[in-house]
Amino acid sequence: MGPKSSTSNASEAQRVDFRTNPQEYKHWKLSVDGKVARLALDVEESATLFSGYELKLNSYDLGVDIELYDALQRIRFEHPGVGAVVLTSDKPRVFCAGANIRMLSQSTHAHKVNFCKFTNETRNGIEDAAEFSGIRFLAAINGACAGGGYELALACEHIMLIDDGSSTVSLPELPLLAVLPGTGGLTRLVDKRKVRHDRADYFCTTSEGIRGKRATDWDLVDEVIPRSKFDETVLSRATEFAAVTDRPLDGKGVELTPLNRNIEKDRITDDTLSIDFQRDLSLATITIFAPNTPPPLDVAGIEEEGPRFWPLAMTRDLEDAILELRVNEEDIGTWVFKTEGDPDLVRDAEKPLLDNADHWLAREILLFMKRTFKRIDVSSRSIITLVEPGSCFVGTLLELVFAADRSFMLEGAFENSNIAAAEIVLTDMNFGPLVMPNGLTRLEHRFLKDQSMVDKTKIQIGTKLSASDAEELGLVTFSPDDIDWEDEVRIAIEERASFSPDALTGMEASLRFAGPETLETKIFGRLSAWQNWIFQRPNAVGEGGALRVYGSGQKATYNKQRV
Amino acid sequence: MGPKSSTSNASEAQRVDFRTNPQEYKHWKLSVDGKVARLALDVEESATLFSGYELKLNSYDLGVDIELYDALQRIRFEHPGVGAVVLTSDKPRVFCAGANIRMLSQSTHAHKVNFCKFTNETRNGIEDAAEFSGIRFLAAINGACAGGGYELALACEHIMLIDDGSSTVSLPELPLLAVLPGTGGLTRLVDKRKVRHDRADYFCTTSEGIRGKRATDWDLVDEVIPRSKFDETVLSRATEFAAVTDRPLDGKGVELTPLNRNIEKDRITDDTLSIDFQRDLSLATITIFAPNTPPPLDVAGIEEEGPRFWPLAMTRDLEDAILELRVNEEDIGTWVFKTEGDPDLVRDAEKPLLDNADHWLAREILLFMKRTFKRIDVSSRSIITLVEPGSCFVGTLLELVFAADRSFMLEGAFENSNIAAAEIVLTDMNFGPLVMPNGLTRLEHRFLKDQSMVDKTKIQIGTKLSASDAEELGLVTFSPDDIDWEDEVRIAIEERASFSPDALTGMEASLRFAGPETLETKIFGRLSAWQNWIFQRPNAVGEGGALRVYGSGQKATYNKQRV
Repeated sequence: MGPKSSTSNASEAQRVDFRTNPQEYKHWKLSVDGKVARLALDVEESATLFSGYELKLNSYDLGVDIELYDALQRIRFEHPGVGAVVLTSDKPRVFCAGANIRMLSQSTHAHKVNFCKFTNETRNGIEDAAEFSGIRFLAAINGACAGGGYELALACEHIMLIDDGSSTVSLPELPLLAVLPGTGGLTRLVDKRKVRHDRADYFCTTSEGIRGKRATDWDLVDEVIPRSKFDETVLSRATEFAAVTDRPLDGKGVELTPLNRNIEKDRITDDTLSIDFQRDLSLATITIFAPNTPPPLDVAGIEEEGPRFWPLAMTRDLEDAILELRVNEEDIGTWVFKTEGDPDLVRDAEKPLLDNADHWLAREILLFMKRTFKRIDVSSRSIITLVEPGSCFVGTLLELVFAADRSFMLEGAFENSNIAAAEIVLTDMNFGPLVMPNGLTRLEHRFLKDQSMVDKTKIQIGTKLSASDAEELGLVTFSPDDIDWEDEVRIAIEERASFSPDALTGMEASLRFAGPETLETKIFGRLSAWQNWIFQRPNAVGEGGALRVYGSGQKATYNKQRV
Repeated sequence: MGPKSSTSNASEAQRVDFRTNPQEYKHWKLSVDGKVARLALDVEESATLFSGYELKLNSYDLGVDIELYDALQRIRFEHPGVGAVVLTSDKPRVFCAGANIRMLSQSTHAHKVNFCKFTNETRNGIEDAAEFSGIRFLAAINGACAGGGYELALACEHIMLIDDGSSTVSLPELPLLAVLPGTGGLTRLVDKRKVRHDRADYFCTTSEGIRGKRATDWDLVDEVIPRSKFDETVLSRATEFAAVTDRPLDGKGVELTPLNRNIEKDRITDDTLSIDFQRDLSLATITIFAPNTPPPLDVAGIEEEGPRFWPLAMTRDLEDAILELRVNEEDIGTWVFKTEGDPDLVRDAEKPLLDNADHWLAREILLFMKRTFKRIDVSSRSIITLVEPGSCFVGTLLELVFAADRSFMLEGAFENSNIAAAEIVLTDMNFGPLVMPNGLTRLEHRFLKDQSMVDKTKIQIGTKLSASDAEELGLVTFSPDDIDWEDEVRIAIEERASFSPDALTGMEASLRFAGPETLETKIFGRLSAWQNWIFQRPNAVGEGGALRVYGSGQKATYNKQRV
């Protein structure tokens, strides 16, 4: 069964699992030698995520990328000494041929889009590590490098191409498949590497690719190195890059032990959250639980708790929930976020992170939280956050209110309930560490019209804010009282389920990212939108479309109309 | 015959003509009183561009917008005293219902996209006038204002809503039609008016719209005014806005006389350019001719020549050519630009503009040139510019080289020809007045990697540059000699014709706008891409899609899958 028939029902077998570990890798080899890690692609052709294709020439499917992402996380958390990562291939004469074309051509539109989103996030994560974690990435291109292979290289800080008389870098998607390079390639070419647009145009329409002097002259790669000197030059560069890291060779890594997930038909539970489905409303309610024991006070305590440390455990659960829901629950269009537990323990759990933000481990956890909340921003799901009595929307978790397309906070208590009215609490977590893809904090984005509101809210750090306080400070969308609550929330959810999912996706992607643009917003906002469009067009996916006929010997036929 | 069957063949009758004048307007009434112009929408229901729909409730089709654009141009050029424009309606109780839905639902995908592009450019032009021309726009919303009607208001600097107990502003596209507001609405809401994203979310999903205090509290409008005071308040605001303009009440306007266009089957000619079609190559060659008489030396001379002044005449012809080709020649995917004539006369024609850039008329002509070149940037056509002997790529016309996806300059002369090798000349025109939608000059965009190259080229202003000079300065993509020229150019053109037009559109839109983002790039790059995607989706345009069934009494049915 191919991804075409990928399931959107929790009970079926073809569920994609994002959990893996190095012992289970089939496609990547991770080795660490002092400050340098080597991550080598050696794809096992037959170990595909779905049936119907083979992963020839180091091409990849989502399964290969899930391993890559896992390996990057392990380098970050389990190998604190690593300061440089060499991305290379263990196959002779081929680095990576990019996303598998047969897999793409037999995939549903939704799977293609989901696949691209995840691979994009992984590559953005590589750049995040280079910028903030002290881990620099080198692409050691030791063979043919096409499409997604070159896009992976583009995510690295330094690109080294072997000069063997034949290996090229190329983005042949447009001429061969009538689609765009889907993993940030176009954007990184002109916006990151600042390749001249006319040269980029030539490059992207030349399926055989570019090598040698032109590759460096045009800034497509940083170095072209003869085969005889390739390995030694790569090692020397990597050593040089790793030397300047501030990551500690003697640091105590945190092992990312398996998540403790339980999947039932209409309910998923983890240690720190639960997901409940109401399929008739296309709804998933994600409830995040506060810590239930006092968190550690310092870094030693964080190291001691390791993967059980609440901010890390919660972020891992939340990330896996997001990925789960995106890929395995495509019909669930609305995510409602709730929280439950002691607000003080959430605040206490954040504190040692904020107090030790320069320590490599605290930094890694904060960066991981940032990246995970970004995944929410770019998820094509409606986000509604409900602040009710018994909740703990403090700092980190309060970001779920700001990330929401709409939030509701109950004014007062529920009738006949002895649970006190909800309060929300701002912390330093809301004013810096957890920026959005556009580089703004969610509060800066919220108050684009009047940035003085950011300062006004900052004064309130630590204060318990009632619904009317929150409304006055502009922190929630609506604050109905008990009489109106049920109706207002119900209508919002039912209404959402009644709208076109596609129009919602386009609208949310447009409204969620006002203000400045970055490589990331350009990739998710512009490039992905164009790619989604092209993925729908008969010239790519229709009867005679290029993606459909590729490899069949048949020539693609195009409707010539320009749109 | 509806736009579904809109022709892509020059010889058929349904060709859209962008030329009009106030005497021919059917939908707009333009009146000027001193410094204030009033532009009132009063759509003639039956005067549609195509058959199959009626323009009820001041809804519009491309024909209505062509008149609006013409009126704006006439205000700029023919009414130099105008400092404020009131956009309002002459229909009772309705301002504007937006784009006509029946028209949209029966249109081809290409027509929808073209329609949105033109209306977007017109609204961007309104903002351009407000920022640079001293013409401020007020929306006097004197009745119901929905969708494109509100988007037109959003393009104005000041939005005034009548308080009559019923009139609202709304963007009901998503809930009613399963598409996005297609004319910049989402972007302007959050990026221009900086409406909070959660409020924008609520607003865009509420088909009945918002009025009264919430409309001002949420920054959707600037003022809500009781019916009894509406007209007088509008007039008083307009007078106030107009008072500060630097446009001269005693200025001498330039009448925009009819273009002198001749359309044959495979050739279109104007006074300053010709277009030749090679339909087997999906190719149009646009040749622009230099002035053939010495241009005037000063403003008095420009005023004297009026519409015959070469920069104005050429820009008008070029603009009309772009619009023509976009809408009437959808199968022509490649535009090749050439020039012909005396380079010195091009330089001389620019000079009085650059020397008098503060004079209202010179300023208007320069702004018009800027906007017209921007139309090239956002055209979904491949642009190839050929610099050959006999050409005159100087200043203004040299922008055609920089705007191109790829440019070729012949090194030396053609064999057996006595025409000397081509030279190109940079002028001040390349370093400021003609910025792209992203706010950069095309040279700044070209040299994003190394801005010192901009200074390096600036030193060369006025120098005649050979092909090898141009290549060395990075000004052209390739500079083959006579031996390679024909092959290289032919291959580039043939190759282009062999690619998927959709993939080319997505690629070009991604590569052409590196660097900073603006309202305009967000509208054309992101919003339009999402809208194009949605315009393809069955949930909008399929059998039971919302756009198809609207008005039929039938309820739209949606595939719930989120992508």
